[in-house]
Amino acid sequence: MLWLGLTPIDRKTLSDIAWQKLGDYLQETHLLGSIHSALYWDQNTAMPFGGAKWRGDQLGLLARSLHSRHTSQQYEDLLLSAEEEFETNVKGDKIGLKESIEKQRNLELLVLELNRQKKLDSKLVSQLAMAQTNGYALWQQARKNNDFKCFEPALKNLIFLRQEQAQQLDEPRSCWETLAQPFEPDLTIQRLQELFKPLRKRLPELISKYCHSKDLKKASWDLDEKHQQDLCNLLLKQWGRDKQVTALARSPHPFSITLGPQDFRLTTRVVPQQPLSCFLATAHEWGHSLYEQGLPSQADQWFAWPLGQATSMAVHESQSLFWENRVARSKPFADRFWKSFAEVGAPFHCGNDLWKAMNPLTPGLNRVEADELSYGLHILIRTELEIAFLQEGLEVHEIPFEWNRKYRELLGVEPQSDSEGCLQDVHWSEGAFGYFPSYLIGHLISAQLAEAMTTDFQNEGIDTEDPIGKCITTNNESKLLSWLRENVHHYGKQVNAEQLVEKVTKKPLSSSAFLKYLEKKLELMTSNP
Amino acid sequence: MLWLGLTPIDRKTLSDIAWQKLGDYLQETHLLGSIHSALYWDQNTAMPFGGAKWRGDQLGLLARSLHSRHTSQQYEDLLLSAEEEFETNVKGDKIGLKESIEKQRNLELLVLELNRQKKLDSKLVSQLAMAQTNGYALWQQARKNNDFKCFEPALKNLIFLRQEQAQQLDEPRSCWETLAQPFEPDLTIQRLQELFKPLRKRLPELISKYCHSKDLKKASWDLDEKHQQDLCNLLLKQWGRDKQVTALARSPHPFSITLGPQDFRLTTRVVPQQPLSCFLATAHEWGHSLYEQGLPSQADQWFAWPLGQATSMAVHESQSLFWENRVARSKPFADRFWKSFAEVGAPFHCGNDLWKAMNPLTPGLNRVEADELSYGLHILIRTELEIAFLQEGLEVHEIPFEWNRKYRELLGVEPQSDSEGCLQDVHWSEGAFGYFPSYLIGHLISAQLAEAMTTDFQNEGIDTEDPIGKCITTNNESKLLSWLRENVHHYGKQVNAEQLVEKVTKKPLSSSAFLKYLEKKLELMTSNP
Repeated sequence: MLWLGLTPIDRKTLSDIAWQKLGDYLQETHLLGSIHSALYWDQNTAMPFGGAKWRGDQLGLLARSLHSRHTSQQYEDLLLSAEEEFETNVKGDKIGLKESIEKQRNLELLVLELNRQKKLDSKLVSQLAMAQTNGYALWQQARKNNDFKCFEPALKNLIFLRQEQAQQLDEPRSCWETLAQPFEPDLTIQRLQELFKPLRKRLPELISKYCHSKDLKKASWDLDEKHQQDLCNLLLKQWGRDKQVTALARSPHPFSITLGPQDFRLTTRVVPQQPLSCFLATAHEWGHSLYEQGLPSQADQWFAWPLGQATSMAVHESQSLFWENRVARSKPFADRFWKSFAEVGAPFHCGNDLWKAMNPLTPGLNRVEADELSYGLHILIRTELEIAFLQEGLEVHEIPFEWNRKYRELLGVEPQSDSEGCLQDVHWSEGAFGYFPSYLIGHLISAQLAEAMTTDFQNEGIDTEDPIGKCITTNNESKLLSWLRENVHHYGKQVNAEQLVEKVTKKPLSSSAFLKYLEKKLELMTSNP
Repeated sequence: MLWLGLTPIDRKTLSDIAWQKLGDYLQETHLLGSIHSALYWDQNTAMPFGGAKWRGDQLGLLARSLHSRHTSQQYEDLLLSAEEEFETNVKGDKIGLKESIEKQRNLELLVLELNRQKKLDSKLVSQLAMAQTNGYALWQQARKNNDFKCFEPALKNLIFLRQEQAQQLDEPRSCWETLAQPFEPDLTIQRLQELFKPLRKRLPELISKYCHSKDLKKASWDLDEKHQQDLCNLLLKQWGRDKQVTALARSPHPFSITLGPQDFRLTTRVVPQQPLSCFLATAHEWGHSLYEQGLPSQADQWFAWPLGQATSMAVHESQSLFWENRVARSKPFADRFWKSFAEVGAPFHCGNDLWKAMNPLTPGLNRVEADELSYGLHILIRTELEIAFLQEGLEVHEIPFEWNRKYRELLGVEPQSDSEGCLQDVHWSEGAFGYFPSYLIGHLISAQLAEAMTTDFQNEGIDTEDPIGKCITTNNESKLLSWLRENVHHYGKQVNAEQLVEKVTKKPLSSSAFLKYLEKKLELMTSNP
């Protein structure tokens, strides 16, 4: 097995033999994990339909193999030895401060995860896997036939098993909090309520102030696939894509995935009658990919270690949202880019046309299609509901009623069917409770980071109210990226999401930067009719 | 682990428990092997350059895992138990004749391969792996710089290690024969000489009779990539491609690969100034894929067993060559298809134009670009040389001289550099000795099968001298495919290449059908100037 992290000279030292052995083990686990990712990528971008059954068997084999590596006695022994060795080295002053902090954090995270895995009964793990497969299948059927009842028992079962899981994990947290940990380490419901409360009040006010039409307008124009792809390629070229380490493809749902320390993939899709969907999805996925590209990688030793991974889903989302919303949906970007759209047939005569098209600002029923203003409310509703059914006794059969009530209350729209209501998202069908808030926290983080970036640039002497906009106007987005790399990406899991934000912005995370950004944008849009 | 082969009722019988366990083991091995294939596919069709190093580590991990599964004590025990159980069942008359024959053959092939693997010293296996990597790297350099000397030591080492390997395998065969077994089971040098001798005499005579120009003409026209791809798609549509189980992509070198029982992939490439290359490569790879699609598959229980695999590389090649040469390069095909080429800009005014363009019949220095007439001579030269340096004392430094001498003698052309001479092929750089003859035997098998197919169709009442041509004229290629499925594909490894040919054509394999086919085609081309 290759050990990528340490130089040959390091290998010769005898004082970190246990550490090296642990590294070799993690490296092999990570190789297997990335093979799983490569098969997932292929499944979504190239595999013919007929390959699904066999692919499922391949993925199952890898998943079992990964699980056994994550919980084996051999691994536990390696981890223990590495801890002992590390402590001896620290006591003997054989290790520098930076290295010591990084190693310490890696060990902490590895131990945390191992203990989590060990607490879980293997019977429950396999019951959950079956319940997820079953839940997903029944959800598809239920959504297709607008039949919540057919999904109900599966969802009940998933809730029961996940409650059971939280109990087995036995953390000093509530059920919902325990389940949210893998997505947002250290998040509490209390903190979540602090963050979301101002949004729950202010977003509906903004909607009623600025949004008059309730119909989601479909574009009356479209672009052919080739032109959409060309525009995406142009965008990524202008955003500095390195073709040596990135590859693009099409898939039914856009995603970004890392297959190796120098192998980053992203996909997009073309949606008929939504001529900007492909472009904005590319901007979004590129943001995710840039975060992964900037993580402490092979060169920094930690590609296969916890430290080399994204710190939370919200931070990940903040990066995709920064490039999608703060950059691509901005006025300066539209002013710079609209001609490229017009040249291939979009009915634009100035930057304002592209900008308006990219920012419809109309509340609707669908989360995925939602704009920046109403998106948060979709998340609030889901979060409240999952906390309610996991730990406050809300019955599964009550979900559709509650869902619709909340939509009416917060967004002023009401689903005509469960298919366009509480059956629209895949997450719950796979038992992924606790995931939704990350999307909205991502909006908050993105806005707060952009505020800090603005201040930093102004302090550097860029004398304008909107230095980010100025960078965009001059296609100097590389400056934005450098800032993000330096201030956000390179930490990996060294700090959690809130610590990261506080480190970078010198303020605790809150909703204020996001609300300020939104209100300013809405004002600007109203004054540019 | 899933067991795909037996129905639930079969599983309940207690008499084949050992057989089922062996099947489960093979299934898992095959899953791993097909993951290796999926990564190879991705590497060649989608992976960015930067992913190479990590991908190498992934493939290495899988290769080691596969090797240990192929040679483990657990596997040997499972195989032994299955053999014992099988014999008991045969004695107890608990097993039908067909099943008994198939199981017997599977066991034979598994035992053969296990014994082979066990005889090899693991030190040699890893030395060979290193020598192959090294050989490939130096060959690339040598070819680029036209510097055979720099490749010499690596080739010497590969020859030495492969000779050592043959010695360890200790089969009742010569060194070259032993190394050729994985490609052509049961092939002997004596048999090879019988097959090739008439070609060595007759092909040069045909060349001097029919080929007057010695310059390989590049086309003076070209087609853009999209049109080439459209033509390939049209071809595969007309040839009955099922999109549910097949996927296409581009890669630097065209290949076909099976990733699952219902997952067949093929690639092609666009070569500037060779506007037919993409199309003919597609025809060729589709032929390979059709063979794989017709092997005893999941439904026939044997996907993960030896019986479900291709019986030899020559049979594989016979299938690709049938579709490329016998169908796509035929006059009836050109008469049917030329308009589709003309419509996108090819300078064709009748079928004859496409036909001539597809059959340049000009001997050159390059094997891959060679036509049907001279191709065989390229193979003869390589085969004679590798037998000579493996077991007749030819020194490595003498290869370039011998290579050039043989080209002069047999093809009437002489390389001006080793790069366009003995350094042109990748095979030897990876120590793949014994592979080349399969290409030429494939030509012979294809021709002999086509002869038998012709007779069968005539006996069915298709009253014409060329019933295959008639099927092509009417786009009834499905009839050709049905014949191949029934007479060739479904055997898998039940019989070896020569047994297969004799079974189907009622004659031992020989070069006569191939020579007859060639002479007829050459006559026809001369009479259609």
